[in-house]
This record gives sequence, structure tokens and C-alpha cells, in this order.
Amino acid sequence: MPPTTGLGVLRHEDPRLLERLRESASVIDGAVTSPERFEKWFSERCATQVHDVTPIPFASMRNWSFAEGSGNLVHDSGHFFSVAGLDVEVGDGPVRNWSQPIILQREIGVLGIAVREINGVLHFLMQAKAEPGNPNGVQLSPTVQATKSNYTGVHRGRKVVYLEHFVDVEPHRVIADVLQSEHGSWFYRKRNRNMLVEVGPDVEAGDDFCWLTLGQVQEQLRIDHRVNMDARTVLSCLPGIGTGTATDRGSGLHTGAEILNWITNSQATYDLGTTVVGLTGLPGWQRSDWDISHDRGLFFSVKAVEVVANSREVAGWTQPLIEPHGIGMAALLVKRIDGVLHALLHARVEPGYIDTVELAPTVQGTPENHEYLRGSVHEQLVDFAVRRQEGRVLFDAEMSEEGGRFYHSRSRYVIVEVGDDYPDQEPQGFRWMTMPQITWLLQHRHYLNVQARSLIACLRTCAS
Amino acid sequence: MPPTTGLGVLRHEDPRLLERLRESASVIDGAVTSPERFEKWFSERCATQVHDVTPIPFASMRNWSFAEGSGNLVHDSGHFFSVAGLDVEVGDGPVRNWSQPIILQREIGVLGIAVREINGVLHFLMQAKAEPGNPNGVQLSPTVQATKSNYTGVHRGRKVVYLEHFVDVEPHRVIADVLQSEHGSWFYRKRNRNMLVEVGPDVEAGDDFCWLTLGQVQEQLRIDHRVNMDARTVLSCLPGIGTGTATDRGSGLHTGAEILNWITNSQATYDLGTTVVGLTGLPGWQRSDWDISHDRGLFFSVKAVEVVANSREVAGWTQPLIEPHGIGMAALLVKRIDGVLHALLHARVEPGYIDTVELAPTVQGTPENHEYLRGSVHEQLVDFAVRRQEGRVLFDAEMSEEGGRFYHSRSRYVIVEVGDDYPDQEPQGFRWMTMPQITWLLQHRHYLNVQARSLIACLRTCAS
Repeated sequence: MPPTTGLGVLRHEDPRLLERLRESASVIDGAVTSPERFEKWFSERCATQVHDVTPIPFASMRNWSFAEGSGNLVHDSGHFFSVAGLDVEVGDGPVRNWSQPIILQREIGVLGIAVREINGVLHFLMQAKAEPGNPNGVQLSPTVQATKSNYTGVHRGRKVVYLEHFVDVEPHRVIADVLQSEHGSWFYRKRNRNMLVEVGPDVEAGDDFCWLTLGQVQEQLRIDHRVNMDARTVLSCLPGIGTGTATDRGSGLHTGAEILNWITNSQATYDLGTTVVGLTGLPGWQRSDWDISHDRGLFFSVKAVEVVANSREVAGWTQPLIEPHGIGMAALLVKRIDGVLHALLHARVEPGYIDTVELAPTVQGTPENHEYLRGSVHEQLVDFAVRRQEGRVLFDAEMSEEGGRFYHSRSRYVIVEVGDDYPDQEPQGFRWMTMPQITWLLQHRHYLNVQARSLIACLRTCAS
Repeated sequence: MPPTTGLGVLRHEDPRLLERLRESASVIDGAVTSPERFEKWFSERCATQVHDVTPIPFASMRNWSFAEGSGNLVHDSGHFFSVAGLDVEVGDGPVRNWSQPIILQREIGVLGIAVREINGVLHFLMQAKAEPGNPNGVQLSPTVQATKSNYTGVHRGRKVVYLEHFVDVEPHRVIADVLQSEHGSWFYRKRNRNMLVEVGPDVEAGDDFCWLTLGQVQEQLRIDHRVNMDARTVLSCLPGIGTGTATDRGSGLHTGAEILNWITNSQATYDLGTTVVGLTGLPGWQRSDWDISHDRGLFFSVKAVEVVANSREVAGWTQPLIEPHGIGMAALLVKRIDGVLHALLHARVEPGYIDTVELAPTVQGTPENHEYLRGSVHEQLVDFAVRRQEGRVLFDAEMSEEGGRFYHSRSRYVIVEVGDDYPDQEPQGFRWMTMPQITWLLQHRHYLNVQARSLIACLRTCAS
């Protein structure tokens, strides 16, 4: 633990934190939980946590209904989330205005991983957790995933275990605590707290929980649909993994000041207008008894499911889920420039972002949608397929987005290292950034989008 | 100028920037513009830029009107800004819900100061600029103050001079570029870009402009209503003045990680709901031919003015202005703890903030309003009056808020250094922070509110 000094004495950041994290990243075998023990525990959890998820007509939902007037899909309590409509106008791009369903969720939840030193090595308390939308049931999740509704008891379920270590945390135990956005194409201005907290020796792993070293968690990241989105985004906010010190942020193709200028300029000048409207009569979308879908079958649909579970805060429930169509692609090109690893990030506009633009992977899109929507993303997807053949694939796994909101969402996360022949000069809207620079930005809210954060967590499995 | 290297070569932040800024802060006399020459220039500008500002009934406004239905005060072009209503609900405090007029301004403007090395010393290009709401006409302003409407020519006025140095800036010239909020009690989610850009020797000062060293600008800050709000907020975003290096951010009463945890926790847990509504029928407010005001005469009123000017982008116009009632107080307590200067910042909720909470001065409020609204701010104002008697007053000046939106707004900005007898232990919602920590936060958007930023610019006149 870092020393806790009382008030009245100046304090410093734990100078050993980065070293301790690197140490934890290097331990894969023979830690508290052996690989065999982990696999046994995880299989047991998968067998125990069975979610029976069945699509149902909207009319069969309990406590959820379409509000009179707006036609928004809302919960009786007024909590959790709702599905409304969004009118979007942009000044640029292949499509200048559109309407779409959007998830409204004002409450800020906590995504938190507890970290504890055991036998001199930092261990992360990972949870095996089923979510109704997961394509494979159980995934490795943060210690805590709690909305305010969760922990204020609106859904009258069981108490969220370990939550007290995050909500009433002693400040010196906090490794990271930062608001980050989620999918700006599906959520309107949603943010969650991403927290890592160092706990004391009194904290033990319950049945659904397991202590893993950072190296072990990173191994799991390489397995399809194994580590959930919430865990990936929390891991991305770890300070300094694969980086030098804070002062190194300037040594890259661009300085820190130049990167901030580029981001601010992108945010300030892009012309985007959004208006939250009712779901009723949304142009281009139609509602049937079973779903709300796009006229051409593109993008996603909104549906309802019945969930029967035996191991969650409540025994069974119904809820809406968003079902993305097609398999998404989130791809990052990386390159060593003067020996320093750079990642090519894209200043991407999504209607749900608070600041209009966030930094996204080099390529992000769903090929099925962009077959119809010819434009820059389509070209990028085609170009990326070529780069993938020529370059060195550092990472390639299929992963899910949040299973509490998305039904069988599947995205391919790929990292390709390109060679010296790939140009240093960026196309408009793209910048090469070093890992220390990205880590520096991830201390603060809303710079990197959720797909980029996932990829950064994955990239660190190669770089550390 | 920092060296401009081409792409393909790793670059570092200008290691001499802090030293050059400190040097500029130390030069008060005998620089390019002598104190005498400055005073002569400023008096001439005051005599030349005469604004004749007359309150008029709303019905006499040109191009402004109350929209049908909503009753919002809007410009015919749909640009500039509008005045709408806001319904606010909070979970805590003396008043749990209220309605109020609020300024909507979606466009992000540029507030920019050009900086140039002349005779080896950095000089800031300050503008003498009259605004209709200023109590005293002309104030020292940034090189550029431009809304998007300004520079896209919506108001068909003259071109904004020097704007090209900010809009089409070469990245290596950028010293700072960050989005910052403005008054969250008067604006809904308004942000402006705060920019400092180093320009080359080809840039000369026009008639309304003057090159001043940082030391000279800081001297002007101590004069009542001399340096405008826009210049103060841009100056607050200067990197590293009065600080050590970035790695020093941890040595204070709290570490950087602890401060981020405290801020994130404040933003995530405070319960605030806002809904933009029409101005018509706003509870507690009444509209006459001449103003929109609160039933008890508190807070502020909305009025209309006719402006006849001889030295602005357009020759004459009418516009709405907000007239705050009473003289505001923005006061900062500072204290040396273990020899290191700390400022006591308050996590303050205002309905117009994007993230609900921003860091504010120790005390911020208008005594006239809080005579009626007894509660913590009233107590803080009373307590501050005592501290002011006992402590050492480092700074005390009356200043205006933005004269393009606010009519004769007056606020007292005061900094008091308290002694060892003042407790290190903070009340709930307050934290002591060092200057390096505050400067570190000011690199990024929306951490410090506009009043706190003004006070930080003022505090640096004492600390540097």
C-alpha cells in the first residue's frame, strides 16, 4: 500500500505504482490463482450462472412500456434507462441528417476493479458475470458494475457486493477514477466512472470472483468474448502501463500541446446538432410488435427479452436490448516511428458524444452498413483489409459490447503493426500518438471512445 | 520560436517555454511598450471607441424578437445566442427546484492571445475593446474574441483581424488550446476555446492593439475593470506559470490521483436535472415591455439595449443583455502548507455546467441574493469577511464579466492568504490544491469555472 500520511504533510504519488503494475503484468503463471484453478473456477461459474434469454413481444414486458405521446420505451420507476429518438444534423459526410433510436441513461454508474497486493504482487479482483445480451453467457467483468439504480435499490434486488470499496473509498487507495463515454451511436451522452482501487488484505474473493495478476487478465483478453467491455474500459484507464513518466508525453510525432490543439479544434469546429425527440414516428424506422428496426434493415434494432437467471441481483426480468446488425470492426494501425510505438487515432464524430468528437480506432464501422453507406469508412475498411495482409497482426479477437444493453453484439478488435513503407503523414482527421500520450489523455474524461479504449487495453498486452 | 521539425522526427515540448514565460512576467518596465506609451495608447483608445448604450423596450429591438410559442428571445438569423427558460431540480441545498432564464449559445467561439518574442522577451498582443455591457467602455481584451457567427460573417460586419493566426494555426505554434466553460448560472453548457499562439516577427500591432509583456498584463489585472473576462480566462490557461514541472503535481496536501477521484466523485454523485423550456410562463419570473425579472427582484434581469458605436465590426445594433443584480464576490483563500502555496477550491454545482460540478473559488456569490437565500453560501460570505480582516489581502479588484452578454456586471475578486491557525482540514466539498496541480488541471476542459480561472490569473500576479 502507498503510505497514508495525515493532513498537514505534503504527499506524493506512489513512486512504485508503475513498477508494481509492470511486475503484475509479467506474472502469468504460479500466482495466487494457477491457470488450472482459474479455468476450473471459470467453467464452474459458466455452469452455475445460466441465463435463459428469450425474445418476447414488447407487450409482454413487465414494468416497461411505450410512454403515451412520445412513444419512448420507459421503465415504470423512471430509472434504469429509456429508448427515445434522436434527430441528427451534421455539416459533413455522406449523410447530412438522420433520425435514430437512442438510449438515454442519465445516471452515472460505477465500473470498478479492486486491486490487492498478494504475495508481493498486485492482483485484480475479476468477476464472472452473465449478462442477458452476451453471446456466450458469462464473461470476465470488473469487481463492480453498478448503476445508481443498482445501489440505491430501485430494482429491489440483492446488494452489490464490494461496492463500498468504491463508493466510500479512502482517497489514497484510488489508482484511477475517471468518467468515460460509451457508444456515441447508441447512447446519448452516457458516461460511467472507471475506477481502480487498491484494497487491503481483508478483502477476499467471493464465489463469483477471482484474483488474477495483470498478466493473467491480459492473457484472457486475447480470448474471444472472454473479457467484457466494462472490464476492458477500466483496464484502459490504468496509469502508466507501457509508458514512461508523465514528462515523456511530448516525445512523439506530435507534442502534447499539438495533440490538445488538434482535439480542441476538431471538437470546436465540427458542426453537429442533435435533438432528442419521441420514438413515435421516427423517420426511417418502424415499430412492430417485436422490434423497432430501420427501413432497410441496417444498423440495429430495438427488441425485448425475457431473462430467467439463477445468479443475479434479481431472479428474473424483462428488458429492452439493442441488437446491432452485422459484426463490427474496430481496428488500430500501429507503427514504430524512430523506434517509438505510435497508434493511429481518428477524430470521430458520433451524435451521442458530449463533445461531438472523441478519438476512435483507425477504422471503426460495420462492413454490412457501409456496403450501403459508401464513403470514407467504407474505403478505410477496404484499405485496412490490405494492411492486414501486409502488416504484422499483433492482436485479433472478437468481443462483445455491454451485455446489459446490447444483444449478441459482436465486434472484431484487431491491431496491425505496419512497416516503414506506411506513411508517417496522416490523412485529415487522424493523428499518430505514442502510448505515453494516450495514457496521459486517459487520465481525463472523454478523450478516447470506448472502442479505442478496448484496443488500448489490448495493445498493452503486446507492448508490456 | 520552438524548432519546427518535419514529420518523421520525434519532437519534444519547447523546454524553454516556462523560462521564457517567467522572464516575460518579470519585465514590467522598458519593454517594447513603455508604461507611459501604454497609458497614452489606452487613453486614446478609450476616447476613440465610444459606445453609446441605451436601454430600450424589447419591441424596439431590430432582428431580435420573442419566438412564437416558446417565447424565447431569438435572433432572426438563428445564430448568436438566444434566451430560453431552464427548469432545474437538485437533490440538495436550500432550494430544491427552480426555473430561470438561461442563455443558449451552441457555437464555440475563439478567445485567443497572440504571443511574440520581441527583443528576446515574449510579448502578448492585447486589444483595447469596448463592449456594450462594460461599466467603463473599453477594457484590455484578447487579440481575438470571435464567435463562429463572427467569423462566418453572419452579422455582415468587418473581418475579425488576426483570426487567421488561430483558426489556421500551425500546430507547433500553439502554447495552449482548451475548451472552458463560462458562467453556469447564466449560460447553458456554453464553452469557448482558450488559445495562446506564438506568432512570428511578421505580426504587427494594429491601432487597437498593443504588445505587452506578461508582467505588464499582470500589472493591469490589478486595476478595477481593466482586463476583461475573456483575457483573464485565456491567461489562466498559460502553462506552468508559477509551477514547477508536470511531475510536481503530486506534492501537495492531496495527490493528483486523489484530486481526480474527488472531482469525479462530485460530478458522478450530485443529483441535478435540467430541462430547457420556453421563456413564456416561467414560474417566478415576469416579463414587462422593458425586462424579464424575478418576482422578488433577485438574481438578474434580461433587458434590451441600443448600441451606437464607431469602432466595431458593425456601426450600430440592438441586442439583449443580462443585468446581474448586486455586486458579486469571488474570493479565494490561500495558505502555505509546509511552505507550499495551496488554494482552497470548492466543488460547485451550477445548472449550466456540462458535468454538473466545476471547481469554483472558496466563496462565490452575490451577498444581496444570499440575504434572502440563507444557507451555506451566506455563511461562507460572512466567514470570508472575518478571514479578510485577519489574513493578508494579496489581491483585491473589481472586475466585469463578459460585456457582450452582461450589462454592468460587477464582481469583487479577492485573494486572502490565511495563517497557520486556519485549519488544513477541509469542509465537505472543498479541497486545498497547489498551483502546479491547478495548472495541470487547466490543460484540460471544464475542471475550473470561469470565476476560479480569473482568480488563478490574478493569483499568478502575486506568486510569480
